[in-house]
Amino acid sequence: MSNTDYKFEGWGAFGPDSIEGKFKWFEYEPKEFADDDLDEVDSRRPTVPVKILYCGMCATDLHMASAGWFDMSAFYPLVVGHEIVGEVVRAGPMVEGGLKVGDIVGIGAQSDSCLKCARCREHKEEYCDEGQIGTYAAIYKRTSPGSKSRGGYANYWRGPSHFVVPIPSNLDPAAAAPMLCGGVTVFSPLIKYGAGTTAKDVGVIGIGGLGHFALLFAKAMGAEVTAISHSQRKVEDAKAMGATKFITTHGHVDDAIKGHERSLDLIICTTSDPNMPLSDYLRLLRPGGTFVMVGAPEVDAMPELHPFFFILNNVHLTGSAIGSPARICEMLQFAGDHNVRPWIKRFPLNEVNKAVPSMHAGEARYRYVLVNEDNGGKL
Amino acid sequence: MSNTDYKFEGWGAFGPDSIEGKFKWFEYEPKEFADDDLDEVDSRRPTVPVKILYCGMCATDLHMASAGWFDMSAFYPLVVGHEIVGEVVRAGPMVEGGLKVGDIVGIGAQSDSCLKCARCREHKEEYCDEGQIGTYAAIYKRTSPGSKSRGGYANYWRGPSHFVVPIPSNLDPAAAAPMLCGGVTVFSPLIKYGAGTTAKDVGVIGIGGLGHFALLFAKAMGAEVTAISHSQRKVEDAKAMGATKFITTHGHVDDAIKGHERSLDLIICTTSDPNMPLSDYLRLLRPGGTFVMVGAPEVDAMPELHPFFFILNNVHLTGSAIGSPARICEMLQFAGDHNVRPWIKRFPLNEVNKAVPSMHAGEARYRYVLVNEDNGGKL
Repeated sequence: MSNTDYKFEGWGAFGPDSIEGKFKWFEYEPKEFADDDLDEVDSRRPTVPVKILYCGMCATDLHMASAGWFDMSAFYPLVVGHEIVGEVVRAGPMVEGGLKVGDIVGIGAQSDSCLKCARCREHKEEYCDEGQIGTYAAIYKRTSPGSKSRGGYANYWRGPSHFVVPIPSNLDPAAAAPMLCGGVTVFSPLIKYGAGTTAKDVGVIGIGGLGHFALLFAKAMGAEVTAISHSQRKVEDAKAMGATKFITTHGHVDDAIKGHERSLDLIICTTSDPNMPLSDYLRLLRPGGTFVMVGAPEVDAMPELHPFFFILNNVHLTGSAIGSPARICEMLQFAGDHNVRPWIKRFPLNEVNKAVPSMHAGEARYRYVLVNEDNGGKL
Repeated sequence: MSNTDYKFEGWGAFGPDSIEGKFKWFEYEPKEFADDDLDEVDSRRPTVPVKILYCGMCATDLHMASAGWFDMSAFYPLVVGHEIVGEVVRAGPMVEGGLKVGDIVGIGAQSDSCLKCARCREHKEEYCDEGQIGTYAAIYKRTSPGSKSRGGYANYWRGPSHFVVPIPSNLDPAAAAPMLCGGVTVFSPLIKYGAGTTAKDVGVIGIGGLGHFALLFAKAMGAEVTAISHSQRKVEDAKAMGATKFITTHGHVDDAIKGHERSLDLIICTTSDPNMPLSDYLRLLRPGGTFVMVGAPEVDAMPELHPFFFILNNVHLTGSAIGSPARICEMLQFAGDHNVRPWIKRFPLNEVNKAVPSMHAGEARYRYVLVNEDNGGKL
């Protein structure tokens, strides 16, 4: 189904080498129109719901564009980007949540689910029994079956309104963008496992894009925050984000841990290194404490673990994936109310081939946001 | 320090081959007397506080007697047994909990801790920062430093009153014995992780001594219980204990799991096989669910795990060790109130060399209790 009013255009990854600065601008077919998309219900001409102003750059974009996790050949050319902020252009009567034309809204990493299973009914859409439909590189099933999902390194986005959330007016919409995936990925377990309430002492492993959000949110929730990093390099940054204690593991890990055993109630682990000293990290937890993995590794293997340690210390190992639309709303409200300000650098959307290699080289301090100036985004 | 009123005598394991039926009756020095032992405070003649009536037989007894977990050479001859029920013979004014002469009391697997750390202050003595002092094969530190702890395959027991609990009058004291370690090992995580309340659907892996308690307690807590076993052999027993669903994994594990994915909120895993299909078992959990290991393996290695699965499913892997004195009291009360009846077989204490090999051969259905008839225990 073609679109007569708007052209869907974006930066496409045409192969794994795209992350070397080889994204190409192209026109593509959007998701086929469905009744609950942000659009006019009875429209015979499916129109465009969200005009993209900003799109955060997430490490996942690079993993996916470069086929680091999965074979992506069925999805090239791929339009990545799942931290989308834009303006509603059309909204019909079946749109959820009272969204209306002119609203500034956000779309995170998930754009659909079955909406029927027990998980979806409990507002845990991210764990839908049918699997989540990613905002890009997925095939819609519930509605518009067979349509590919397309992300936000683009001019427009179309998708189910259930996964579109309003951006509160007290948040800079450019700063809200990277929260939609990176932010909620850590906000969700921080809230769920009681950061600042039942979990007074929170550790954050890895001071990168996710880690920086974890430090900012944990601090804003009232926790005492320990930054755990391989090197000393980012200690000053971590301090500025709210950390008051630091563990650097670049030397002998036993020495680094010494004196910190059983000092934390919750650890958010943002690194994805299968060689990380996981057993040592677990020693940092108090009995009853929880270690949450949020950084998905390119090698799906976990360091060796010892059952006796779990039994004798009652530590919990788990993982957490993004967050539901309800959780994203809660996060945005919290961020606005607590003046949480992510550290972002803005790039014009047209400079994507400069931004991607820079991010790939680990230069981000700590999130990049692409700005669509043509659509009204502010650099 | 010798004892003039009583002789401490018991069945000693003199080496790893003891479990082949080679325990020997011998006299030994008990723990040195301390003020808060169940004893007279000002006594110049340390006397004997608990006259042993029953002692449950725990798999740990066999692991320890045979040096399956640790080198035990420093502890032979070893008096095992940490599911002790007896009668208080002396109780001085510093004894905790109002215990008095004639009370029927129980002692579980832990007999001391520092009583000062945050864990001890929160009634989580089993996770004491200084480590727990086992009821046998440990060295006391807080009081009577250097004294060896000695267990319940014996005629008397002496130790800190903090770890002695009253047996409610509505419980058969012989049936209460195996609850003191085996029972609370599963009762504690069942209660902690909400069996019957937030965790409506509970799975129990392994239908042995621990598993049988898990089935009985989970059922009594109101949960829907699934028994998970390698073979069909114990299905009828599991049904009689309250299980309504069964998964047998002796064939192709994928086939066994099929149709049961995401059907459980909590799994109590009582097996200790490092080759168990752990990743498959985790697929049985709903997002948010918890897998609790309580069976300590002789090989301290865990099957391979995959971080992506944890992230995409928010399952929790943890372990749990025995239970605090407060938890044991809660369990005994619950067992009495809900008429929980463990499946026990009684052996005269003098037949320990018959009972141990039988238990080692896996013949227990499902717990053995040694009865000290000389002290008044009832066969």
